[in-house]
Amino acid sequence: MQLIDGKAVAAHIKQQIAQEVSDIKAAGGKTPHLAAILVGHDGGSETYVANKVKACAECGFKSSLIRFENDVTEQELLDKVKELNEDPDVDGFIVQLPLPKHISEQKVTEAIDYRKDVDGFHPVNVGRMSIGLPCFLSATPAGIIDLLAHYNIETKGKHCVVLGRSNIVGKPVASLMMQKAYPGNATVTVCHSATPNIKEICLTADIIIAALGSPEFVTADMVKDGAVLVDVGTTRVPNANTKSGFKLTGDVKFDEVAPKCSFITPVPGGVGPMTICSLMKNTLLAGKKAIYK
Amino acid sequence: MQLIDGKAVAAHIKQQIAQEVSDIKAAGGKTPHLAAILVGHDGGSETYVANKVKACAECGFKSSLIRFENDVTEQELLDKVKELNEDPDVDGFIVQLPLPKHISEQKVTEAIDYRKDVDGFHPVNVGRMSIGLPCFLSATPAGIIDLLAHYNIETKGKHCVVLGRSNIVGKPVASLMMQKAYPGNATVTVCHSATPNIKEICLTADIIIAALGSPEFVTADMVKDGAVLVDVGTTRVPNANTKSGFKLTGDVKFDEVAPKCSFITPVPGGVGPMTICSLMKNTLLAGKKAIYK
Repeated sequence: MQLIDGKAVAAHIKQQIAQEVSDIKAAGGKTPHLAAILVGHDGGSETYVANKVKACAECGFKSSLIRFENDVTEQELLDKVKELNEDPDVDGFIVQLPLPKHISEQKVTEAIDYRKDVDGFHPVNVGRMSIGLPCFLSATPAGIIDLLAHYNIETKGKHCVVLGRSNIVGKPVASLMMQKAYPGNATVTVCHSATPNIKEICLTADIIIAALGSPEFVTADMVKDGAVLVDVGTTRVPNANTKSGFKLTGDVKFDEVAPKCSFITPVPGGVGPMTICSLMKNTLLAGKKAIYK
Repeated sequence: MQLIDGKAVAAHIKQQIAQEVSDIKAAGGKTPHLAAILVGHDGGSETYVANKVKACAECGFKSSLIRFENDVTEQELLDKVKELNEDPDVDGFIVQLPLPKHISEQKVTEAIDYRKDVDGFHPVNVGRMSIGLPCFLSATPAGIIDLLAHYNIETKGKHCVVLGRSNIVGKPVASLMMQKAYPGNATVTVCHSATPNIKEICLTADIIIAALGSPEFVTADMVKDGAVLVDVGTTRVPNANTKSGFKLTGDVKFDEVAPKCSFITPVPGGVGPMTICSLMKNTLLAGKKAIYK
């Protein structure tokens, strides 16, 4: 069993980005600039955004953090999105989800100029990804693909079972894994809450990508020997033994599943760091206007 | 075994559309108008476009057919697309594929205003479909969904195996079949040219949607008893016994597979008429500005 070290791969990619940004600056080019909008003070969101700002610094990017309180109106948020769309200094920006219930996440996501949508959530980027056209790839799926590539994991003709059909992980990673490309070219099965026989299907999988958000859902009796396990789950499970009072828990029961695997991602330190890394890659592409003019 | 009569279902839906159009006209509303661009004189394309024009008449739509010869330049075609985008009388239009090799189909498809893209091929419509937002659904996948609904075929929790990963059938129908909706909510597996064990996977399928374009690929030994077979294939196979010199042949070896099925679509007369019907539904939605303003 080999542990997939997302932290190390992400550090390596960020270093490459930093080198390229350094070259761009030396040549008199523009410093890529990522802006993030954060509404409220949710613990998870605070951590994610802080990590993104930190990653920007590591990559040599400029970053801006725009904060709103929970009582911000949808219109105020949409006005800020419009301002960022029109700001020529901002290459890409994200609105950290989730948003308060009185604001439509979909409306806000669609208001972002797709040419600055470095999260890859806008319908134009989702559609272009499905068709196989250049676009900002959704960050978590792109990070998974990069991990598979980094470890030279064979995917062609393999059976890849995706657990979960969310718009930000399950559906897009299924789409990428079936494309005629490497990594990709896999036979892809998408399972979800309405699938009656998930265990049986998982047992036929060469690669399992678990993105249900259901802590320790995948157990050893669901995994065949030699399978590749990619764990996208990051649920905060209350835990009295940690300083924060919770423990980040994946969708895979790591201790019992790991011995059966050829490769497995840990939580934390697997897919998580790669997601932020993909955001950095998209920001660099946006800064270079490599995908859209 | 019950035969799925796409021709009858399509006729029924077109009748409903005609009634609604008649009501719209009676109330002084605008007659929906579909335009079609046809390049060259390919036999298949001529037939498809002629059938679309005929369907428009049945629905009470206005239709326009714009012809170019095979030597039309990409720029001339793009100019016509722009003209149709800006023509307030045209509610929706299609460019019949395939196009001559010197013209980029992707470029032409993307040049169409997504609000008039009644084929549902534009990235905005593809992305919105994947996310589950209102959009012009790709015509063939939408027609398949309508057929399953018409025959009250259970899809929730069923294993749906899609053969083929094309941008116009395989990928979008897989996307629709996994949505939390009826028809949908199925466990979906997408197989393609790189899948080594298609037969084995098909044998586990409750629903097979065959869209490989490979005549009589699906044989009786690949199908379990009681399966639902949707045959999207329409390959013109040379045949000395027909007036046209060819026979439209599906992806399913009908004679031997049909006896094992609970439901099966014939070729022709199954999915084909439904594809045109979906185009008519999209045109009506475009005429009513029901999806985009």
